[in-house]
Amino acid sequence: MRDDRGRQRVIIEGVRPAVDGGRFPIKRTIGDELIVEADVFADGHDALAVALRYRAESVPQWTEIPMEAIGNDRWRAAFPLSNIGQYRYTVTGWVDHFLTWRRDLIKKRDANQDLRLDLLIGAQLIEKAATQAPKEVEQALSRWVKELRATDAPEADRIRAALSAELAGIMAKHPDRAQASLYEVEFAVIVDREKARYSTWYEMFPRSCSTKPGVHGTFKDCEKRLPYIASMGFDVLYLPPIHPIGKTHRKGKNNAPTSRPEDHGSPWAIGSPDGGHTAIHPALGTLKDFRRLMERARTHDIEIAMDIAFQCSPDHPYVKEHREWFRIRPDGTVQYAENPPKKYQDIFPLEFETDQWRALWDELKQVVDYWIEQGIRIFRVDNPHTKPFPFWEWLIGEVKRTHPDVVFLAEAFTRPKVMNRLAKIGFSQSYNYFPWRTTKAELTQYFTELTQSDVREYLRPNLWPNTPDILTEQLQHGGRPVFMSRLVLAATLGASYGIYGPAYELGEHLPREAGSEEYADSEKYEIKRWDLDRPDSLQEFIGCVNRIRRDNPALQRDGSLRFHAIANEQLLCYSKRTADGSNVILVVVNLSPHHVHSGWLELDLASLGLDADQPFQVEDLLTHAHYLWQGERNYIEVNPHSAPAHIFRIRRRVRTEQDFDYFL
Amino acid sequence: MRDDRGRQRVIIEGVRPAVDGGRFPIKRTIGDELIVEADVFADGHDALAVALRYRAESVPQWTEIPMEAIGNDRWRAAFPLSNIGQYRYTVTGWVDHFLTWRRDLIKKRDANQDLRLDLLIGAQLIEKAATQAPKEVEQALSRWVKELRATDAPEADRIRAALSAELAGIMAKHPDRAQASLYEVEFAVIVDREKARYSTWYEMFPRSCSTKPGVHGTFKDCEKRLPYIASMGFDVLYLPPIHPIGKTHRKGKNNAPTSRPEDHGSPWAIGSPDGGHTAIHPALGTLKDFRRLMERARTHDIEIAMDIAFQCSPDHPYVKEHREWFRIRPDGTVQYAENPPKKYQDIFPLEFETDQWRALWDELKQVVDYWIEQGIRIFRVDNPHTKPFPFWEWLIGEVKRTHPDVVFLAEAFTRPKVMNRLAKIGFSQSYNYFPWRTTKAELTQYFTELTQSDVREYLRPNLWPNTPDILTEQLQHGGRPVFMSRLVLAATLGASYGIYGPAYELGEHLPREAGSEEYADSEKYEIKRWDLDRPDSLQEFIGCVNRIRRDNPALQRDGSLRFHAIANEQLLCYSKRTADGSNVILVVVNLSPHHVHSGWLELDLASLGLDADQPFQVEDLLTHAHYLWQGERNYIEVNPHSAPAHIFRIRRRVRTEQDFDYFL
Repeated sequence: MRDDRGRQRVIIEGVRPAVDGGRFPIKRTIGDELIVEADVFADGHDALAVALRYRAESVPQWTEIPMEAIGNDRWRAAFPLSNIGQYRYTVTGWVDHFLTWRRDLIKKRDANQDLRLDLLIGAQLIEKAATQAPKEVEQALSRWVKELRATDAPEADRIRAALSAELAGIMAKHPDRAQASLYEVEFAVIVDREKARYSTWYEMFPRSCSTKPGVHGTFKDCEKRLPYIASMGFDVLYLPPIHPIGKTHRKGKNNAPTSRPEDHGSPWAIGSPDGGHTAIHPALGTLKDFRRLMERARTHDIEIAMDIAFQCSPDHPYVKEHREWFRIRPDGTVQYAENPPKKYQDIFPLEFETDQWRALWDELKQVVDYWIEQGIRIFRVDNPHTKPFPFWEWLIGEVKRTHPDVVFLAEAFTRPKVMNRLAKIGFSQSYNYFPWRTTKAELTQYFTELTQSDVREYLRPNLWPNTPDILTEQLQHGGRPVFMSRLVLAATLGASYGIYGPAYELGEHLPREAGSEEYADSEKYEIKRWDLDRPDSLQEFIGCVNRIRRDNPALQRDGSLRFHAIANEQLLCYSKRTADGSNVILVVVNLSPHHVHSGWLELDLASLGLDADQPFQVEDLLTHAHYLWQGERNYIEVNPHSAPAHIFRIRRRVRTEQDFDYFL
Repeated sequence: MRDDRGRQRVIIEGVRPAVDGGRFPIKRTIGDELIVEADVFADGHDALAVALRYRAESVPQWTEIPMEAIGNDRWRAAFPLSNIGQYRYTVTGWVDHFLTWRRDLIKKRDANQDLRLDLLIGAQLIEKAATQAPKEVEQALSRWVKELRATDAPEADRIRAALSAELAGIMAKHPDRAQASLYEVEFAVIVDREKARYSTWYEMFPRSCSTKPGVHGTFKDCEKRLPYIASMGFDVLYLPPIHPIGKTHRKGKNNAPTSRPEDHGSPWAIGSPDGGHTAIHPALGTLKDFRRLMERARTHDIEIAMDIAFQCSPDHPYVKEHREWFRIRPDGTVQYAENPPKKYQDIFPLEFETDQWRALWDELKQVVDYWIEQGIRIFRVDNPHTKPFPFWEWLIGEVKRTHPDVVFLAEAFTRPKVMNRLAKIGFSQSYNYFPWRTTKAELTQYFTELTQSDVREYLRPNLWPNTPDILTEQLQHGGRPVFMSRLVLAATLGASYGIYGPAYELGEHLPREAGSEEYADSEKYEIKRWDLDRPDSLQEFIGCVNRIRRDNPALQRDGSLRFHAIANEQLLCYSKRTADGSNVILVVVNLSPHHVHSGWLELDLASLGLDADQPFQVEDLLTHAHYLWQGERNYIEVNPHSAPAHIFRIRRRVRTEQDFDYFL
């Protein structure tokens, strides 16, 4: 305080957005505008000037734009995020003596006070600015100094000169910032490509893609599946691990502790004499085949997401070549995974507490780098919460420094604070509790938290109604209407969502045993053959919902989510809306699979940008039925046996000058 | 991350309490226990050990106490604040491999698994701890190592040894903390004496204390006033500035721009040829008289609070001796205070932007130091928001470093964020918006914010229903019942409150003119004579309320404040309660001065520590009437013409083993 900071009268506090005071970056996507706010004030009543400073990480120079006072000492400005990568931002502010003087001069003039001394004070301020300004500005300012000091001129002329907008403009451009305050934190924002925010995932086991029964599918078979996936509107195809599978302690069908010779094992038991994390399972094809699949997928606007599961089968080359990366037991054997009393003898976890941790980190990064070289830009990370947080923070940071277009999805269905931390340290998207949030109260509470609290700044939820590990009780018992309603919920509550197919569209719902969330005859342990042409497939319905997502930008973001009241516990109603209000979607979902439900909506019209006294049009985008509504209260009925949800687009009425009405 | 932090698997987040991530200290009072919580977790499923570290600022060694897991990865511990001054605290945590191993051993034993290898792993862990432990511990641990490795002994014995509580205790005391995480912020807590939290203020102009009409009062007259002040239960007597008053541009009666020779001027126009901020107005007496007043006050348990108003009359010695501490205008005159178009020519503000700012800071600190030497420990600071924040942060920090018992009250009725910042940078107590919060909605909203949000960690409100500057419209028109109800509100909503007397107890309510909050014939500009014996004086009522405050510790803190519902907009109901529940106070105030109001209370029984199925006793501490209530809903009636409030003490029913009921 006794150093020069003692002279910095301007206080800057409460800079937002920020995660943990700036310890972690916030997240945005390209083309967004980042709105920054801060509390800025000083002692006394002097006028302030406040500026937002920002720069792309790689550019040392700051760009500054003035912040505007929006009341209660809060200031705001926004800057464009034109490129992917990282930006920095912070806030600076200073007391503006000229602005203070000018403001007070006007008040005194309006009170008819004697201004002679004030004009001389103003001249002093301008003179001081002149000495610090570039040559040509100095000359201009000196002219004003003379005018303000021209005691022989009429006072009215001198006041007019003093208050001229041109002078104010020049003085604002050349302020005295010697005592400016600069906020001590440089905040970071990660700017991702759009897919990090808005993505539609399809998970599929490549080995089940053959059309011939019992035959191991290949990448070539996957290629043939692409039009089918594209027809449903998915843009990310996520494949479970494609690496060689270990034989030692291989699990049999339904996770049996021993396997028969014809069993194919779990793709997550990675590594065999054929190779480890950078090798490809020979039965699937070659690296060339895989690259061709990626290319073909791209022609359908589909990107391949790769699974990153940093764990090893006992046959993984690392086990022989790098015993120092495993935990060795007193009998000299390698410690397998366990969650006592459960044992997973087919899986050896990597030992991050090894003294050779730096070499281990480097090797794992090289795995990621290798697949990036092959063209992969999306990684779905298996169980990230069982590896140290500093490792992920380092890995993701390093990867994105050279490849800011890479997207990481964290597969961590674990404790809330662990999930949040993984998002903070860099994961682009996060699995979450959606599968188990089924009632109106649960969904409302959870998605309000995800989209309205600070969590929204760093965690992007990716909603999965099912995964190969999760067949929820609701899906087991609810029948087709629940498969439809859960899909609509995932697709409209989440800008990113995914399904594990074809299990999902074919309504696969039998558990291994009662009370289990495991599938009976799970695809994790065997090759399945799916009849994609079944008449009860949801293929068409899913395609329709994903088309609605694509056509309505309101559904491609989460921040605008608002729930609307309806006095029926089985009906959930919510809306999303683009920032400019040009696209507004209202969804009503019947959460009960068995009954028709109806009720009176009580819409929060302000959040929809609607006037209470103007009718508005609602179009059900699933059925193309149109209705004309007005005001908050509107009757709604949802029959789960036709469709368990309405997805309405809302259009305001606009009246032209010719008294012609249309809906926009 | 590539440095050793990469090995620190434990994450520590969300440490509370904290102000702005630890940038500012929180506040507590002596004898409090500081409860600290944090989110602490690691990757995977290993057991953790977490410790709270704390130390008195002056002690370099940390004390550590284990934190307890309270669910959802939240940990908690508390430490005692036994001395005034500053303490530091932070959190550390590490993966506890022995604890993990022990927990898993129990699970495996219960599942009847083969434990031979596990016992050897345990022996390794103990052996490693032994090598790092002190000699005698090493020997004890070595014995256990042998027991665990005794393959010839019965396995049951080896397991019993492995799980012995003694071993667990020793291992917990000698953990391997090489990879421990330490939270990067050292938080600070300011521990004040109790008066910083719980204080009852009386403001009085010494010059009006003479009993002879028109005669300037003295400190000796003040002494005679002490029993009267003590009879009302006040423990802080705050005197407006007692320094010499300037003559140049002295204000006359009712703030008239010119004064007559017999006018005494405003005490805030500090400085004359008789001296400045360390001098005493000769008409009041001598320094010796002042010290005697302080001493006499102490015998009545009253402390004198001094006014610190860092501003000068044109006659202040600084003006001649330190022109560099003022702003000089182009004509060579000193800039007076102004708030255009208003001019305050009797006041010269100090110019903190002077190049000589360090000398100015030093001088002002010497003023404070001087009065501390005379025995002053409470300062009421006039208009702190017109001096730079870094100045106050430095001044208060320096003063409290050597005199941690000093209390600073910030007189800043200004913008909310400015008031909050002043509290953050060190002011012990803060004036606030209480005078203008009059409706039920306003009071509920404002005091919920002050007592339930993070503001409670650093801002201690001091509630003033009036001041010499503030005669609210409500007091002007409400009559005696409003003077009573506002006093009850101040005295029970705030652990600290004060009144400007005798204006308050005598119901002074005439404004200078309609629409003004200034008193007619304000005491700020003239000597007043008050008839303390008037039969309508509130002296006795105030004494009663302050006795209730003294007898009920629930009213001596603000954090437990809870509002209770009652369907009548004129009735405000709230409670306070000690942490141990032994003292519970429920207040019902009638906000309307003119009418009897009644309604059904809907008590939040849990917040009162009451059972719905047990009767409880309520005693009105103002009237000593007793009632027996049960459940949430209870009828209440408040007649402003007898007393505009009930202050109930609530006692739970306790049933002895002999079936004898009493209320506690």
